[in-house]
Amino acid sequence: MAAAAVKNGAGGDTKADFARIYEALKEELLRDPAFEFTDESHQWIDRMLDYNVLGGKCNRGLSVVDSYKLLKGVDVLGEEEMFLASSLGWCIEWLQAFFLVLDDIMDDSHTRRGQPCWFRVPQVGFIAVNDGIILRNHISRILRLHFRKKPYYADLLDLFNEVEFKTASGQMLDLITTHEGEKDLTKYNIGVHRRIVQFKTAYYSFYLPVACALLLSGENLENYSAVENILVEMGTYFQVQDDYLDCYGDPEFIGKIGTDIEDYKCSWLVVQALERADESQKNILFENYGKKDPACVAKVKNLYKELNLEAVFHDYESESYKKLIADIEAQRSVAVQKVLKSFLHKIYKRQK
Amino acid sequence: MAAAAVKNGAGGDTKADFARIYEALKEELLRDPAFEFTDESHQWIDRMLDYNVLGGKCNRGLSVVDSYKLLKGVDVLGEEEMFLASSLGWCIEWLQAFFLVLDDIMDDSHTRRGQPCWFRVPQVGFIAVNDGIILRNHISRILRLHFRKKPYYADLLDLFNEVEFKTASGQMLDLITTHEGEKDLTKYNIGVHRRIVQFKTAYYSFYLPVACALLLSGENLENYSAVENILVEMGTYFQVQDDYLDCYGDPEFIGKIGTDIEDYKCSWLVVQALERADESQKNILFENYGKKDPACVAKVKNLYKELNLEAVFHDYESESYKKLIADIEAQRSVAVQKVLKSFLHKIYKRQK
Ligand SMILES: [Mg+2]
Ligand SMILES: [Mg+2]
Ligand SMILES: [Mg+2]
Ligand SMILES: [Mg+2]
Ligand SMILES: [Mg+2]
Ligand SMILES: [Mg+2]
Repeated sequence: MAAAAVKNGAGGDTKADFARIYEALKEELLRDPAFEFTDESHQWIDRMLDYNVLGGKCNRGLSVVDSYKLLKGVDVLGEEEMFLASSLGWCIEWLQAFFLVLDDIMDDSHTRRGQPCWFRVPQVGFIAVNDGIILRNHISRILRLHFRKKPYYADLLDLFNEVEFKTASGQMLDLITTHEGEKDLTKYNIGVHRRIVQFKTAYYSFYLPVACALLLSGENLENYSAVENILVEMGTYFQVQDDYLDCYGDPEFIGKIGTDIEDYKCSWLVVQALERADESQKNILFENYGKKDPACVAKVKNLYKELNLEAVFHDYESESYKKLIADIEAQRSVAVQKVLKSFLHKIYKRQK
Repeated sequence: MAAAAVKNGAGGDTKADFARIYEALKEELLRDPAFEFTDESHQWIDRMLDYNVLGGKCNRGLSVVDSYKLLKGVDVLGEEEMFLASSLGWCIEWLQAFFLVLDDIMDDSHTRRGQPCWFRVPQVGFIAVNDGIILRNHISRILRLHFRKKPYYADLLDLFNEVEFKTASGQMLDLITTHEGEKDLTKYNIGVHRRIVQFKTAYYSFYLPVACALLLSGENLENYSAVENILVEMGTYFQVQDDYLDCYGDPEFIGKIGTDIEDYKCSWLVVQALERADESQKNILFENYGKKDPACVAKVKNLYKELNLEAVFHDYESESYKKLIADIEAQRSVAVQKVLKSFLHKIYKRQK
């Protein structure tokens, strides 16, 4: 069993252990008896995994380990527990890789994490679609291998299935609202924005890591719907920040130049602008939103200034924070409060 | 519950009941509380399901119902049992739709079941990738809704997960062997052919329906590895027939004109030819296989004739049949024998 291959010294370095567990999981997948690998297919998977699963910050994956430690009230996990928590963390990283590989195809993107998108690599092309499927399947393989005998095995499968379904549904809403047919800003409103954000991002990025840690702790997720709501709210808040920073963040600091206006994104900013604009201001949006021309972008940004969207955002931010803190402090378990606050403090007033 | 919506009269018409259960399942999926549908996304899924799940012959789905009846030794199922068996049958049809939608993108195909491939429909395009994912997710939703309380629920999830993984792995092998880089016939041999066929087709088309019926009957699949092997062998035999008919079948009868030679397919015929060809005959294959030019195709077909591949096929067919019948009759359960024979007799010496 792969757990045995991971030495987790006392007071060990979580990030290093987490990284080593990736190698152990990959080795297992490459010897999976459910398929007869040829040399070529073995090499293909090896390379495809390193290319797509690695290279991110692993925030989601590591937060399973961190949350589990807080729930247990310990600083260091035993070897077996570290292995199980990290495996669930890696399952989320695999899920993310699956979404990103396919999203890049659908968005016709060029780069991801500082390298060409996987489908743009020579000799990959549309094989990337099947590689996405294989990434998703690896999660089931990992869970089956290491969690089959656990009392919460079916709950774990249900959790990943339901979160994947919500994410794909949010992605559908995004695709048909923002890509389909003619550009039509009247489709954009705060209800649509919230739904896209919650389903496409919040469940898998915020709720899923904590839900994994709860299951690992022997908890029944049915008792944690308040926690789910708080995390989904936090995920929404996180995406609103993302939309805000795309326009108002420091490109040096966030590492990219925002293009949401040019890309006709259903951003929180445009939704707020539409809500506040009079007829003539709406026409400015209709005429200039979603165009590459820098003069058009400038007109949109100007309107945002007129409508005082920076202040609107800062109000939203402090209101959200107050509400989240109140909801968190209403939780009975102090350990759960700690988990939720650790998430909130990672993102509150972030600049990148 | 959807089951209540289905009236299954005594001695009822299985096909009509099966069709009605599709409508019930679709209605449930369109009111799934795990997503907040907008009108547009509701319409999108409704249309996407009818376009992609329907239109096939439903052989795989119906064979769950037929196998379950044989295992139980009854001609007619009760309403609840008919609903459950049909739901599992539809899950296989959904799985098939998921594979086909994505396969058509990867193969850059034009038509499927007599209509344009889904991704070629105006306003669909690469949204079809996400629709494929949603089709797969619907299986988990159906299983969760109707089988969550069954003692075999985790086994059912494991079964669909493992069969999906095998199919995607077979698809990978097919893609990297037959699409990757330069055309290289030396990669084609009987071992590669067998692996592609077994993993890409046999597990989901032959093993999965019977495995579903066995689980529904309360059986433990660990006791049925011989049955699995027989069904995978039958699936292999079925694909060899398919490869044979592509070249030697009557286009009037099979409803299409075979293009495996033009398409550089890793067909059983070319594998047999490579095994029997001398150096100069191999050169004929190297120079003419995988070219659209009818003169090249004719040279390949000529070589097949020289090598007597029709006779090689008929020997293979009768050997396979004998072996399968012997293996089937070695099964302890007469009901299981009946299930396996019903599959075999549907395909033995088929002309289309
Ligand atoms: Mg994208
Ligand atoms: Mg996208
Ligand atoms: Mg953004
Ligand atoms: Mg195809
Ligand atoms: Mg194909
Ligand atoms: Mg064929």
